[in-house]
Amino acid sequence: LLDVDNSRVELETGERIGFDAAVLATGLKARIPEVEGADLPGIFTLRNLSDAISIKQYIRQNAVRRVVIVGAGFIAFEMCEAFRTLGLHTTMLYRKQVPLKRLGETFALKLVDVIRARGVRFVPGADISCFEQEAGGGLRVHSGAGEYGSDLVLIAIGAAPDTGLAETTDVALGQSGAIAVNERMQTNHPFVYAVGDCCETFHRVLRKPFHLPLGDVANKQARVAGANIGGGSASFPGVIGSFCFKVFDTEVAGTGITEQEAGEADLPARAVTVRAPNRPQEYPGSEEIGLTLVAEKGSGRILGARAVGGRGTVARVNILAAAITANLDVEQLAQMDLAYAPPFSAARDVVHIAASEWKKA
Amino acid sequence: LLDVDNSRVELETGERIGFDAAVLATGLKARIPEVEGADLPGIFTLRNLSDAISIKQYIRQNAVRRVVIVGAGFIAFEMCEAFRTLGLHTTMLYRKQVPLKRLGETFALKLVDVIRARGVRFVPGADISCFEQEAGGGLRVHSGAGEYGSDLVLIAIGAAPDTGLAETTDVALGQSGAIAVNERMQTNHPFVYAVGDCCETFHRVLRKPFHLPLGDVANKQARVAGANIGGGSASFPGVIGSFCFKVFDTEVAGTGITEQEAGEADLPARAVTVRAPNRPQEYPGSEEIGLTLVAEKGSGRILGARAVGGRGTVARVNILAAAITANLDVEQLAQMDLAYAPPFSAARDVVHIAASEWKKA
Repeated sequence: LLDVDNSRVELETGERIGFDAAVLATGLKARIPEVEGADLPGIFTLRNLSDAISIKQYIRQNAVRRVVIVGAGFIAFEMCEAFRTLGLHTTMLYRKQVPLKRLGETFALKLVDVIRARGVRFVPGADISCFEQEAGGGLRVHSGAGEYGSDLVLIAIGAAPDTGLAETTDVALGQSGAIAVNERMQTNHPFVYAVGDCCETFHRVLRKPFHLPLGDVANKQARVAGANIGGGSASFPGVIGSFCFKVFDTEVAGTGITEQEAGEADLPARAVTVRAPNRPQEYPGSEEIGLTLVAEKGSGRILGARAVGGRGTVARVNILAAAITANLDVEQLAQMDLAYAPPFSAARDVVHIAASEWKKA
Repeated sequence: LLDVDNSRVELETGERIGFDAAVLATGLKARIPEVEGADLPGIFTLRNLSDAISIKQYIRQNAVRRVVIVGAGFIAFEMCEAFRTLGLHTTMLYRKQVPLKRLGETFALKLVDVIRARGVRFVPGADISCFEQEAGGGLRVHSGAGEYGSDLVLIAIGAAPDTGLAETTDVALGQSGAIAVNERMQTNHPFVYAVGDCCETFHRVLRKPFHLPLGDVANKQARVAGANIGGGSASFPGVIGSFCFKVFDTEVAGTGITEQEAGEADLPARAVTVRAPNRPQEYPGSEEIGLTLVAEKGSGRILGARAVGGRGTVARVNILAAAITANLDVEQLAQMDLAYAPPFSAARDVVHIAASEWKKA
């Protein structure tokens, strides 16, 4: 229990500990589908190291051969690689048709092709209706796209900020449902801080509070809170929504906002998608990068980017993350002096091409 | 012959061709040491594809086993990898002690270690006094650090803008010795343009004309000249001095200016060097990146960076290239929202660490 008025916490043991400053770092809790059988043994979520260890142990101890992943977000895509690497029959059930909304349909479907090429069965339109114990000891997953037998089920349908402790107090939540904080990482109680996946942060492109539960954001927020608690004066300027993950040999990344998010925020925006090799085509090992660049109509200010492709895809998105942080426009991007050598890029890089194409379009 | 006054060129055949606009794109010519024997057969320079083909043919046709590289710049380091990959005994002779001045001594000596570990003999203090034909058909290279027998010699001591054609006219050269141009890529004659390795460009950090003969710069300059000749209005904002190359499995890159260059330009600057893994240390295949960050005293404005290390080193420097282009400071860099996932970086990336350390130092 967090007793804000008396500046103390009360443990389950009854012990009370006073504080000058408290930091809420309660993280996320995984979402679970509200269907029958969701609590059967063999059904897991993955939030932390002990979840991962439990999954590995279960696979070993139960001679798991078949896995069903429910959901098709970052964790689902990352885990289908992990399961395939262990040689397991892997099925991904997704309730809608096209996953990974922030990537756009073309890139999302490309990733579906990537996992299918590696032997993952991807099943769209597969809303879960219930889980059932099979006679032989396995699980039966009933979905809107048929029934699937499995020895292990991973639920990966997202996570929500764990605000349970905050809600026992009058620490305020923001519109996203995560704990509201200012740029010093203080909640509405100046001596109660919140950092990491349980709290909101300011989105610098959307200009509003945003929940972006990622480890690097948590790391930065915690340093800011720590500096302020220690008597310093630090502030966290917020995020621009950068993310990345790897699916087998394919890199996936994004930063800033999509044209849909821009529209919802009344920012007139236009997107262009280009494909170009990550190295000169004649250089051995050249791979394609697909890049979508979103910029503000008129000004050309860069608002967002997302990319799927071979080695160096994440690197390109990070150049764009810097550009968005600095409010650069497409003209500045088209002329940007990036480090060039054939092992790393073509003389005219995919980010230059995207910027030029945006101007032309 | 370029006849500017009469807007025509005269070919060696005597043919005359009139023009409305001319583009000088004469490139570079390799520097050759002014010593006896520098024109012996088996001594090569490397500027273009036909040079490369000649070198390969010579190696094959003459059963080359021993190679001496004179010089220790980008080309020398890249070529020692190529020669070692062909299984040749490779010796690099360098007249000074520490190569690659713009990388700083620590990183430069690390690269010497990298090539030595791959069997390249690196010999400092080896100023060339002459080349001699050996009795058996090989070459004898006489240097300030002893004599070296070789079947092939590659001269890689740099290159100068090829301004021969320009100098037959009154097209003006700049202080660097390359052709002077404005931001539209025009020379002092508005209808005579110059692009690529033969011309200067504006250095955006040093705020002065600069000669940076690199393929990506040439590519951008040529587009600007082409747009202007075609009746458009394009301008090239200049360079910040970004470069990269690969030496075996080590990536090398730099952007902006060094603390020495800052000092010469009366910019008060301070540098900090950090080392951090390119991925979380517990992630398989984690490699170190060494990064030197140069920023302006007081303001913290980022002026330059250079890095040597494993996979992703060039990618980090490109983030810094964007930051320098946008005049970001170390605080903005420390808080930058970059795409994070363990296959690509630690939660706190080497660029964040460098920015934080710069602030502390």
